[in-house]
Amino acid sequence: MQVVPLLALALQGSNNLSTPQTGDDGRFYLWVALGVAVVALGLALMLARAVIASDSGTAEMQAISNAIREGAEAFLKRQYQTIGAIALVLAVVVFVGYHLSPRTAPYAGKTVVSFLVGAVCSGLAGFTGMYCSIRANIRAASAARSSLDRALKLALRGGAVTGLVVVALSLLGVASLFLLFGGLDHPEQVPFQLVGFGFGASLVALFAQLGGGIYTKAADVGADLVGKVEAGIPEDDPRNPAVIADLVGDNVGDCAGRGADIFESTAAENVGAMILGAALFPVFGLKGILFPLIVLAINLIASIVGVFVVSTNETENPMNALNRGFYVTSALALIGLAGAVYSMLNGPGVHPEWLLACGVVGLVTAFLFVWITQYYTEARYRPVLSIVEASLTGPATNIISGLAVGMETPAMPVVVISAALLLSYFFGVKGLEDVTIVSNYAKGIYGTAIATMGMLSCAAYILAMDTFGPITDNAGGIIEMSNQPESVRERTDKLDSAGNTTKALTKGYAIGSASLAAFLLFSAYLEEIKTLVEQKLAVAHAAGLATSMPAGWSFTNINLAQIPVFVGALLGAMLTYLFSSLAIKAVGRTAQMVVKDVRDQFRENPGIMAGTSKPDYARCVNIVTSAALKEMVIPGLLAVGLPVAVGLIFKHFSSVYQANASFDSAGVALVPTIAGQVVNLAGAESVAGLLMVGTIAGVLLAMLMNNGGGAWDNAKKFIETGKYGGKKSDAHKAAVVGDTVGDPFKDTAGPSLHVLIKLLATITLVLAPLFV
Amino acid sequence: MQVVPLLALALQGSNNLSTPQTGDDGRFYLWVALGVAVVALGLALMLARAVIASDSGTAEMQAISNAIREGAEAFLKRQYQTIGAIALVLAVVVFVGYHLSPRTAPYAGKTVVSFLVGAVCSGLAGFTGMYCSIRANIRAASAARSSLDRALKLALRGGAVTGLVVVALSLLGVASLFLLFGGLDHPEQVPFQLVGFGFGASLVALFAQLGGGIYTKAADVGADLVGKVEAGIPEDDPRNPAVIADLVGDNVGDCAGRGADIFESTAAENVGAMILGAALFPVFGLKGILFPLIVLAINLIASIVGVFVVSTNETENPMNALNRGFYVTSALALIGLAGAVYSMLNGPGVHPEWLLACGVVGLVTAFLFVWITQYYTEARYRPVLSIVEASLTGPATNIISGLAVGMETPAMPVVVISAALLLSYFFGVKGLEDVTIVSNYAKGIYGTAIATMGMLSCAAYILAMDTFGPITDNAGGIIEMSNQPESVRERTDKLDSAGNTTKALTKGYAIGSASLAAFLLFSAYLEEIKTLVEQKLAVAHAAGLATSMPAGWSFTNINLAQIPVFVGALLGAMLTYLFSSLAIKAVGRTAQMVVKDVRDQFRENPGIMAGTSKPDYARCVNIVTSAALKEMVIPGLLAVGLPVAVGLIFKHFSSVYQANASFDSAGVALVPTIAGQVVNLAGAESVAGLLMVGTIAGVLLAMLMNNGGGAWDNAKKFIETGKYGGKKSDAHKAAVVGDTVGDPFKDTAGPSLHVLIKLLATITLVLAPLFV
Repeated sequence: MQVVPLLALALQGSNNLSTPQTGDDGRFYLWVALGVAVVALGLALMLARAVIASDSGTAEMQAISNAIREGAEAFLKRQYQTIGAIALVLAVVVFVGYHLSPRTAPYAGKTVVSFLVGAVCSGLAGFTGMYCSIRANIRAASAARSSLDRALKLALRGGAVTGLVVVALSLLGVASLFLLFGGLDHPEQVPFQLVGFGFGASLVALFAQLGGGIYTKAADVGADLVGKVEAGIPEDDPRNPAVIADLVGDNVGDCAGRGADIFESTAAENVGAMILGAALFPVFGLKGILFPLIVLAINLIASIVGVFVVSTNETENPMNALNRGFYVTSALALIGLAGAVYSMLNGPGVHPEWLLACGVVGLVTAFLFVWITQYYTEARYRPVLSIVEASLTGPATNIISGLAVGMETPAMPVVVISAALLLSYFFGVKGLEDVTIVSNYAKGIYGTAIATMGMLSCAAYILAMDTFGPITDNAGGIIEMSNQPESVRERTDKLDSAGNTTKALTKGYAIGSASLAAFLLFSAYLEEIKTLVEQKLAVAHAAGLATSMPAGWSFTNINLAQIPVFVGALLGAMLTYLFSSLAIKAVGRTAQMVVKDVRDQFRENPGIMAGTSKPDYARCVNIVTSAALKEMVIPGLLAVGLPVAVGLIFKHFSSVYQANASFDSAGVALVPTIAGQVVNLAGAESVAGLLMVGTIAGVLLAMLMNNGGGAWDNAKKFIETGKYGGKKSDAHKAAVVGDTVGDPFKDTAGPSLHVLIKLLATITLVLAPLFV
Repeated sequence: MQVVPLLALALQGSNNLSTPQTGDDGRFYLWVALGVAVVALGLALMLARAVIASDSGTAEMQAISNAIREGAEAFLKRQYQTIGAIALVLAVVVFVGYHLSPRTAPYAGKTVVSFLVGAVCSGLAGFTGMYCSIRANIRAASAARSSLDRALKLALRGGAVTGLVVVALSLLGVASLFLLFGGLDHPEQVPFQLVGFGFGASLVALFAQLGGGIYTKAADVGADLVGKVEAGIPEDDPRNPAVIADLVGDNVGDCAGRGADIFESTAAENVGAMILGAALFPVFGLKGILFPLIVLAINLIASIVGVFVVSTNETENPMNALNRGFYVTSALALIGLAGAVYSMLNGPGVHPEWLLACGVVGLVTAFLFVWITQYYTEARYRPVLSIVEASLTGPATNIISGLAVGMETPAMPVVVISAALLLSYFFGVKGLEDVTIVSNYAKGIYGTAIATMGMLSCAAYILAMDTFGPITDNAGGIIEMSNQPESVRERTDKLDSAGNTTKALTKGYAIGSASLAAFLLFSAYLEEIKTLVEQKLAVAHAAGLATSMPAGWSFTNINLAQIPVFVGALLGAMLTYLFSSLAIKAVGRTAQMVVKDVRDQFRENPGIMAGTSKPDYARCVNIVTSAALKEMVIPGLLAVGLPVAVGLIFKHFSSVYQANASFDSAGVALVPTIAGQVVNLAGAESVAGLLMVGTIAGVLLAMLMNNGGGAWDNAKKFIETGKYGGKKSDAHKAAVVGDTVGDPFKDTAGPSLHVLIKLLATITLVLAPLFV
């Protein structure tokens, strides 16, 4: 590995860098990050034990809970087998691909190891979180028989196990690999070798979210179509053979799926921010690279305190209690962020107050996204009310008005994200105004990275609130099915309603962080391409080939006016539509299978509807499991395959579509050349176009689907409170149509798009060496 | 005007251009273009007279037709007043804006003149086309009483008047302005002064399509909701007070709207291709600039022949006859294209066979788009059948499956467009391989321009087929309302069904040409910015200010990795969603007003339903007219205002977000400077990002809405043929919901997005001087 000569050449080429600081004075922070991660995992274990030790209700409740648990665990087991097989194949592809060139061969082992560690940690995080959630649901149900406060605490703490495990495993994984790969010796090299971790996490997350999302909505829509509509029995009625599959779906979709989503968000953004920190190595040294790890550690500490602060009484709206915890977490995160910025991001000429301002921009963005999501999905505001009114003239106007609301939703978030990017870029430049050894561009981009970390600084608490949703949903289902008294139901209904709100908020938060992080991840990709070209030139130089390296050459040029970039952009945008279409159709097909099986069961065993014999819940669970696992494969492979295909095709035809179009003052194309041959970047640049425009298109489409779906759901719920005719009215029927349409939008395609966006970023980071 | 010294500086700066050829040897082609345009207008007049001279049916039919005519003309009159006022305000804005800088002040007058001429021509084309269509409908209805062939010919010839007037006026306008502005003396300068024509055309088209689109669907949905659903009377029943408004809507939406759409397409693409021709002036001279005009002239000749070839008999499917005409037109266009390429695009080292291949790529793309549109919207194929099957389980699954089909639709077209761009770029480079005085980039881009012109080379016939749609729709309505015998209805039903198909195909064609043309228009914008910077430097040079012009500097760098470009891109994509949302909501609100008025009329005058007294048709017409005109203003102004705001804001803050990031071999930023100050292009580049990504997002969203809407419509029609339970079945009810949802998609928001995309291109072309 020619790391040192390579770096020397790169530094010599760009005369605006000083000698890097030694990495010594930041080591301490790596140990802090590792320590906090281990302590948080320990605390999560203790929390889990405490939750599991509490009372688990009557035998009847346990029977239901056991059925849910068995179904969920069986699904997860089979799902991980499928994902494991795909991951192993991809590991071989990456390993072989890296060995195709002598330049990248030395990194093949490290990349594959970090890929597999990322995949395993992601799977472990998903499994552990769900393991606790499906045990917390019955405990929360049981506690609801005596006290709202106890039920709330159990559900939130059950959720907190997921939140802590996810964030702590992500931190532990990245920090250990950094240590293992010699990050303390070559701090500015190692972040590039961690990209495999993000890719492994994204890959597992994509399939987990797709499979879980298809499962949950197919079971839900199928159970409703045949139960509520055909047989006329209420939701969660034990006579419905699909009811257990429906409850299993809440766990494997909302719970395991979102956990994997947030895991890969923290992992990818962490690694991306470390890569950008490496670009500022001359300014901050090792500390700038470790800064993202410390923010995650702060996140863990603040979230633990936030979770333990939450308590309520019998009369309070549980949402207020949850919000108090969120405010405490945010305040602590802000204090921690300030401490981290002032102690880590300093040096001669640095103004940390501006860098802290970047972090504040991230926190404010998180708040604004949560507020905007509430505006579009709560029945207090105009959007949902407009859908309610449109329901009076039937399902067609309900749908039209829901789609119009959905299409309106990206407007405000896009303005917020634009402002956040512009401000944090500006603050980043201001904060390093007096530092002359790095470009304004690197300063500004690091500012956006700090903002992204700021937004992530309460992720664990947000995830705890999110997992609270499926736990209370299941608790409500168990209470419903085990015929508990009305007062208990009231408590679980209150919790369930708060859970619906938190689930919607988390989606807003997830898409907000995805869009802010997108720019960070693009920049990391461009940094990596630049480093790869520099390495290539160094190898050629060592071999005595005529090498010209334009000094100050900067690969930050994704020029949309070039055909390869534009075509990549078109294909990226198209991918998000096709992917969503496939996901939605998968739900439709799987739901039809549920409908068929339930009809068969009713026909084969008339005792079910009479209440004299039990339906075969496991049969439905098996059908949905098999179908969801089958259906997740094609959209998943499309997402993985398209960027690879685009990059390789344009690399192959790069002589035709020369994509570097800058010229120096003598009119010579300003691109690196080896032995007179231009280093053509058409492949790498077209993939960048695909990534960037795919992200923009995906973010907007996800907002449409998440918020449109949420608005339809709450319009129906509003009518069910007795307004505009209440249940059984024509308006209600129309609103049910909207709600059903919104289901695969908000719980399958929308959340899967979040993951797709980040998968595109991580896969391009890992496979970049193949495109140059 | 320092035209000559400016050009000299520009040429001297880039040492790869030879002395331009004199413009002499191409003048002939300008006179040919003008001559063909005048002859085509004359022929259109004769056709119109022949159509109007034919029999106009019974007094009862005339009464209905007159009511439609009065409503449509009253709407158009008021609409043009509103649009005229907006256009005058914008003319003043452009005039003042151009006067803000001494560089652009000399062009203010010419730009405003061409803007106003473009607006007036567009209005005239829309008015003339509709004038003839609303007279052709009753003649076609009357002819249908005796012969299918005569009715078909009358409807197609009525449509051909629109097709010919639109294309001929566009050609005449551009060619005359080129002559008037001294194009024969400064051929490579004048195309930039014609951008106002395209902007004028787009502005009128946007409001015409928005206003007409809102009108037609509000009347349609409103009439259906209250007539079919509430009162239980059939479609086109004369007792429905909204029935005339519905028929008026077909004319003002489909007919005038699409005419204005195609007018601005030909105008904008024409001017854009001329600007790119100017970049190849050293190779082709004047002929390369006039080539697009000659293609439009060929288009007119081929389409006239195509229209006169069409005839049928009583038993044939009218669609076959229309297709024969299309094939004849395409074959003639291909022959003409070959002649134009070989006679105009030649010179030393030019291989015209490759340039003709670019044109063929365009024609093939048109065919593929038409085929793909058929695949997604005809009941013979899987997509529509999947919606039909989903209708069996109710409206929710119908909607889910329609949206899934809609989201799938962009996949194939995007692949086709990508292939067309890559091939025509490659063929362009090959065709000029041996020409050394222009860059590969300019060669490739001119190749895509030839492909776009190839795709447009049968536009007039396509438009004739499109206008055939509303004429036959109205003819059917008149026959229905005047109680004609069953045999006559059968004929008009046949024609109406063919008309539905042609309308869907034209939308596919329109969006295909919009996406292929997009790249041409971007490139024209970049050429213009480059020219503006060169002029600015020349002015500074003349004033003795220290000026450095990096030789070979090329403004073709829309770098998505730069914050201003990325934020522009985010906002551009968001604009398409918000615009669609506003358009759809406008339809909903206006439809509610129709419902209310019809209910009022039924209550006030019970004789209407009894059939003893006539409803007040005019009242409904007035209500829809006022509402549609009011509702079109906000989305229209948003489309105009956002790019302007983005460009001006980033221009103002350009010192913060320096967006030029190329460096020369000494590490100095490779950007033009005046008196040591960098010429910052953050404003111009952010607008380019908005334009390009807005176009990509808009094209995909428009495909989703057009094809999704078409598929829902035909799924309903398929069930109405008696399949899956036929009319009145539950499946039919579900399919009606889908059809209603699809209405504002495919007839308001989708077509308006086509226009929006091109408006973005033309407004940025016209206002580019304000952003630099």
